[in-house]
Amino acid sequence: MELTTALEELEIGYDVPALPGMDESDIQTPCLVVDLDALEKNMRTLGRYAKAHNMQLRCHAKTHKSVDIAKLQQQIGNCSGLCCQKVSEAEVFARAGIKDILVSNQVTHPRMIDRLARLPLLGTRTLCCVDDMDNIQALSQAATRHQTTIECLIEIECGQARCGIDVGPEIVTMAQAIIAAPGLTFSGIQAYQGAMQHIQNYQERQQKIEVVVALVKQAIALLADANIACDIVTGGGTGSYYFETESGVYTELQCGSYIFMDADYQTVHDANHLTISEFDNALFILTSIMSHAKPDLAVCDAGLKVQSVDSGLPRIFGRDDITYQQCSDEHGVIDDPQGVLKINDTLRLVPGHCDPTCNIHDYYVGVRNGTVETVWPISARGKAF
Amino acid sequence: MELTTALEELEIGYDVPALPGMDESDIQTPCLVVDLDALEKNMRTLGRYAKAHNMQLRCHAKTHKSVDIAKLQQQIGNCSGLCCQKVSEAEVFARAGIKDILVSNQVTHPRMIDRLARLPLLGTRTLCCVDDMDNIQALSQAATRHQTTIECLIEIECGQARCGIDVGPEIVTMAQAIIAAPGLTFSGIQAYQGAMQHIQNYQERQQKIEVVVALVKQAIALLADANIACDIVTGGGTGSYYFETESGVYTELQCGSYIFMDADYQTVHDANHLTISEFDNALFILTSIMSHAKPDLAVCDAGLKVQSVDSGLPRIFGRDDITYQQCSDEHGVIDDPQGVLKINDTLRLVPGHCDPTCNIHDYYVGVRNGTVETVWPISARGKAF
Repeated sequence: MELTTALEELEIGYDVPALPGMDESDIQTPCLVVDLDALEKNMRTLGRYAKAHNMQLRCHAKTHKSVDIAKLQQQIGNCSGLCCQKVSEAEVFARAGIKDILVSNQVTHPRMIDRLARLPLLGTRTLCCVDDMDNIQALSQAATRHQTTIECLIEIECGQARCGIDVGPEIVTMAQAIIAAPGLTFSGIQAYQGAMQHIQNYQERQQKIEVVVALVKQAIALLADANIACDIVTGGGTGSYYFETESGVYTELQCGSYIFMDADYQTVHDANHLTISEFDNALFILTSIMSHAKPDLAVCDAGLKVQSVDSGLPRIFGRDDITYQQCSDEHGVIDDPQGVLKINDTLRLVPGHCDPTCNIHDYYVGVRNGTVETVWPISARGKAF
Repeated sequence: MELTTALEELEIGYDVPALPGMDESDIQTPCLVVDLDALEKNMRTLGRYAKAHNMQLRCHAKTHKSVDIAKLQQQIGNCSGLCCQKVSEAEVFARAGIKDILVSNQVTHPRMIDRLARLPLLGTRTLCCVDDMDNIQALSQAATRHQTTIECLIEIECGQARCGIDVGPEIVTMAQAIIAAPGLTFSGIQAYQGAMQHIQNYQERQQKIEVVVALVKQAIALLADANIACDIVTGGGTGSYYFETESGVYTELQCGSYIFMDADYQTVHDANHLTISEFDNALFILTSIMSHAKPDLAVCDAGLKVQSVDSGLPRIFGRDDITYQQCSDEHGVIDDPQGVLKINDTLRLVPGHCDPTCNIHDYYVGVRNGTVETVWPISARGKAF
């Protein structure tokens, strides 16, 4: 590293981990690094798949929370719209010009209902999920107040035991209530089975989705009997999208993690392999060794303040001679039995769980061929309302 | 809630969860709420203890990352200086006028060494830890370049197997190297045993600290034999500070979590109780119920994006009829066997681990007697360099 030059360049950005044109070795750690080739390959892979199978791709922005990445997904990844999980997140993307956003979640707080009802004023088609009759009335009042339209999807319980109504006559009552409510339209069904995404065994996931598909078919039939059409059936994630596609009843996919992948998703098997093989690792925590006072233990600068370990510790990319074995707030302890690491060596960690890890950081450093090409703000970081 | 008034007030702050004067029931969720009475009581309790025992209190700002809280610790909590864990964190506090900061960590990246060496230019006494001879030279060069002084503490291995040298003749060699290095002074020993803080059993923690105290005494003796004085011996946390105080060899305490407490620390026993009894819960994740489509399960809006679950799931404050049983990115699933919860009911969650939880949020909402008194920015949030 040419210290003086690197420092002078960084003076411009101060708390930004890198600047475009910098060598990868000059990036300030710990930070998130995105391999742009891998990212683009992942986007193109799923984009081609969706196009070939005539599926809408409504990629989930809760994974990356970045306007730049969302726009790239639209440019090269065949994304027609976006999912967000929170209204405050949706606002960030709507302000940036994204024109079709599903808040794939219930919006129940009066303040957030009001903000949701104002999203269409930005020119954004606005959808959300419902599973409660009172909520439908509150959404209708807000849409009426702002003279806008909110499209509602009824969320059905898919075996995750979280949000969503059980499929039965209630779905017709609820759809009719939506249709009757000023300012709302009924657009279809949200049927996302999140809990199954991370089940390793392919056949086990397939069995879970068969249950969901049967429920969706039952819901569509119940609605059809009441002369209610179901334009959208949306769901599917990185660990299941081919099942939803092949079901013949889904119209949209909501994959999020596919652009980055993470250590947990890589333990999920596809039909032929012991890992999801169609997507590459594109997201890394770049970390430096900061202490090596014991011969067989190195300490790196990436601990709990730069990652979520809810789904396990990170994997060290491209290395099987060293292991990330423990972490505390600001430290990671690395087993280095041969003592190969030195202070200021850098490593790429594959985070255990990408979504909550990205939500801690302010920037992605986009790297190609060893050079920093771009620094993207994580525009909706921390937007939790 | 008077919707219109609450909305109009929040328009001013937009993405701030609340504004001063608001009723607690109008706070936007999910967010961090601080019980100001409990916070101040915790600060005063440890402050009085330290004063009575003639110990310096160098509270750890890595817990709260807030300039406002640091200044309150100085005003009412008898804090003489501050600990930070990262240089970028220390910069935030130095710029805000804090005049004595120990970066209780190794600083090894050339860029961060340079920034550390410039902290004294802000009028801030600047200390850091070292455990490597080459690092001493790099720190010296940077301090010389900026004509400043960095005070160095040698970190010793205390049984945590992380940073720090083993106590032995090397400590003298290292202290002599610091003394000989232009721009550096040798100020003492960093002896923090982090791993023991969360051991539940009081006697077991006591045994761990006895090992540490023996090591510290040995280190002081080795240095004394070489005519090197050891002005500072610093360490101790919320789960151990009375042990370090009673040892007779420590001069400083580094407690951080005591101001907030968390669910994990509350499983730690003090000498007479099955919990740490001298500090109250002051930090909460305020969350709202957003779905209750199943009779015995409620879903709240606080998941992995507003907390770190590395040390376990949150506890629901003041309630034993309901249990937070599972979480995903944006949802918490609450076992509600009697179906007592309704949509938009709010709950206070005690996070499993306060430090990495605070690092996700942008604001603390300070509440007293049911009213919002202040909103504090988490000034050093995400400062990981």
